[in-house]
Amino acid sequence: MESTALLTDHYELTMVEAALRSGAASRRCVFEVFARRLPEGRRYGVVAGTGRLLDALEAFRFGDEELARLRSSQVVDEQTLDFLAGFRFTGDVWGYAEGECYFPGSPVLVVESDFAHGVLLETLVLSILNHDSAVASAASRMTSAAGSRPCIEMGSRRTHEEAAVASARAAYIAGFATTSNLEAGRRYGVPTAGTAAHAFTLLHDDEREAFAAQIASLGKGTTLLVDTYDVPTAVATAVELAGPELGAVRLDSGDLLVQARDVREQLDRLGNTGTRIVVTSDLDEFAIAGLAAGPVDLYGVGTSLVTGSGAPTAGMVYKLVSREDSTGTMVGVAKRSKDKQSVAGRKFALRRRSSRGVAEAEIVGIGEPPTDDGDDRALLVPLVRGGERVDSEAHTLEAARTRHTESRAELPAAARRLQRGEPAIPTVYED
Amino acid sequence: MESTALLTDHYELTMVEAALRSGAASRRCVFEVFARRLPEGRRYGVVAGTGRLLDALEAFRFGDEELARLRSSQVVDEQTLDFLAGFRFTGDVWGYAEGECYFPGSPVLVVESDFAHGVLLETLVLSILNHDSAVASAASRMTSAAGSRPCIEMGSRRTHEEAAVASARAAYIAGFATTSNLEAGRRYGVPTAGTAAHAFTLLHDDEREAFAAQIASLGKGTTLLVDTYDVPTAVATAVELAGPELGAVRLDSGDLLVQARDVREQLDRLGNTGTRIVVTSDLDEFAIAGLAAGPVDLYGVGTSLVTGSGAPTAGMVYKLVSREDSTGTMVGVAKRSKDKQSVAGRKFALRRRSSRGVAEAEIVGIGEPPTDDGDDRALLVPLVRGGERVDSEAHTLEAARTRHTESRAELPAAARRLQRGEPAIPTVYED
Repeated sequence: MESTALLTDHYELTMVEAALRSGAASRRCVFEVFARRLPEGRRYGVVAGTGRLLDALEAFRFGDEELARLRSSQVVDEQTLDFLAGFRFTGDVWGYAEGECYFPGSPVLVVESDFAHGVLLETLVLSILNHDSAVASAASRMTSAAGSRPCIEMGSRRTHEEAAVASARAAYIAGFATTSNLEAGRRYGVPTAGTAAHAFTLLHDDEREAFAAQIASLGKGTTLLVDTYDVPTAVATAVELAGPELGAVRLDSGDLLVQARDVREQLDRLGNTGTRIVVTSDLDEFAIAGLAAGPVDLYGVGTSLVTGSGAPTAGMVYKLVSREDSTGTMVGVAKRSKDKQSVAGRKFALRRRSSRGVAEAEIVGIGEPPTDDGDDRALLVPLVRGGERVDSEAHTLEAARTRHTESRAELPAAARRLQRGEPAIPTVYED
Repeated sequence: MESTALLTDHYELTMVEAALRSGAASRRCVFEVFARRLPEGRRYGVVAGTGRLLDALEAFRFGDEELARLRSSQVVDEQTLDFLAGFRFTGDVWGYAEGECYFPGSPVLVVESDFAHGVLLETLVLSILNHDSAVASAASRMTSAAGSRPCIEMGSRRTHEEAAVASARAAYIAGFATTSNLEAGRRYGVPTAGTAAHAFTLLHDDEREAFAAQIASLGKGTTLLVDTYDVPTAVATAVELAGPELGAVRLDSGDLLVQARDVREQLDRLGNTGTRIVVTSDLDEFAIAGLAAGPVDLYGVGTSLVTGSGAPTAGMVYKLVSREDSTGTMVGVAKRSKDKQSVAGRKFALRRRSSRGVAEAEIVGIGEPPTDDGDDRALLVPLVRGGERVDSEAHTLEAARTRHTESRAELPAAARRLQRGEPAIPTVYED
């Protein structure tokens, strides 16, 4: 991985310079990542990006090229460049494990280090968590609405080319079955899928020729796109060419519910009871829910997924909540800016659960967590210790995917409502 | 640059495989990129990403690693892998020059090649143009609303870390003065800026100590953030420490218009008539317009910019519009899917202008463009010829920035209205 050190706001470096000069750069600090609120009407959020962040953190080094650029553009002085040349994050990081649900005020990441080390990470941490969590949070609503029917991520063309890779990963954590994005397959092992677009049909002299070419190459189990010209004609041609082994047909336009019913009837009448129906036209969680009563087997989701279904960023912030004072004592700090207050001090976080295992509250507090009554679940896990990544089976992508399923299942039923409302559980601050 | 070849949807490769087998892969094709509509109520869009696309195209090669992944995951067969191993785009590309305004149906990019070459580029082309154009389109409304006051791009933390770099570049094209993103400075030469965040004030034992540390490091001309505790107190401290040379104060919360007026009055009273006021709290084009009457000198814009101010993707599509038939004749093609129709055939595009140079219509047609009456402006320029990038002074970032200013200035006055409405000029199809 190339250096990630310049994926950083200019002011993080000028703050390091000024703090090195004032001597405050070495003060022990606690930074906290949290969202003041969920996107309007959402019931829960999903933490994603943690694994990518740990990769990016390992590549957060100022090499010769980065230093040369900072020198030539006079971002910081020579003393600061010397500091950056040797920079390697040596602090500790805790966080909500990837795939975990979160709520307003949940301390989803906690960074403890000196000021210089902690402040340098701000931009990168937020970029990754805000993007990936926004996508995972939308994706979770879609897989929830889809129930047992698989969702296919296919939004690469509607977002930045690297954001597309991260989106595929985040969607997989939140329960999507496959992605169209090949790089997500290579980089993260997300299963990839795809067959053909309208261009393939238009390329050939007629639809029959196109379908025959696709079947010759991809087999009878392929998915044929049947809405380029006339749907019933295309379905008839598809069945004629592939027979009962035809894998699926795809609808990408028009009234999907009506068409899915018509196509299902036609397929069944032709004996293709095992041929599945894939729908893919501008779906979001609401459209998926609206198709629940229809004979649909798979949902392909693009634009709405990669743009967070109306909430393209999670709105998380990275705030200094505690730091050493001149006597070496840690003190809680918080700005008093209007509408942007934070809660001072190093936090713990627990998911309070009923004796039946249903989540009841997000407990956030300062100091020692209350004695566990056996039902509560601690939420902060160690991710980096003394600059070293804490490797664990718990941090794999598959573990995150499983965790998300479990974390969502534990929420009260209201969490799965798509209409706007309050967070599924309240956040309670305890002293 | 690393290979960009896998930043591609799975189905582009299966289509190549099937077309190689059917023999249609070598048919000459014309693909066109266009947006069916602008985001709701927008008056114009801005093409951006072209320069990034040309960079990415040069890196679109299937190396050993990419081929190994495609083989192990059985995406395509050996014959297709052999084809991909030697792949290098050899076609032609025309497009709207970067920074140009566009409208519904504008053929912003035209790719002419055989089917295999053209279809392989689809995902990458759309990812880049859809992202960068969405950001530039939002940015242009912001710089238009800001008038002669500079806008600072500072949204890196609210979007994917690489999308942040591209966003800074797109915003610069659309008239932003600077960015917070250091990588955009290194990679594209966008000027970077920044001073300090609330954390820097909170780090120190009091605000005075923090301001003194910042001034000692960054000079009296720096921008001091004055809303961590109490604004009037902070402004008084700032002026006391820096004197009349104080560069600027920044407001990041509360009622910005009221506060800007109060702060301006306080600064003037203290003799700091040259100290500027920067505002940065959740601004979008509407908030910028709302501050026009206030004594604000610079606008910092984050979230709204990188998320396209409500339209995070430009919604452009990549459609096969013409291809060779079995006799070698080029024929126009278009699918008939409901609500998703396209116009067949290779297009020309002109901006029709009045004798006074005001844009009147987007003329899109098939075949030879009408004879220019001297006022019309041809919009498609060559970008790639026979696989080779057309290098030109016209394709630099600075040229794109200048072009955008000129292209926007030429639109009728209605284009600069922020409220929802129709596109500023109609798109007229001519045969």
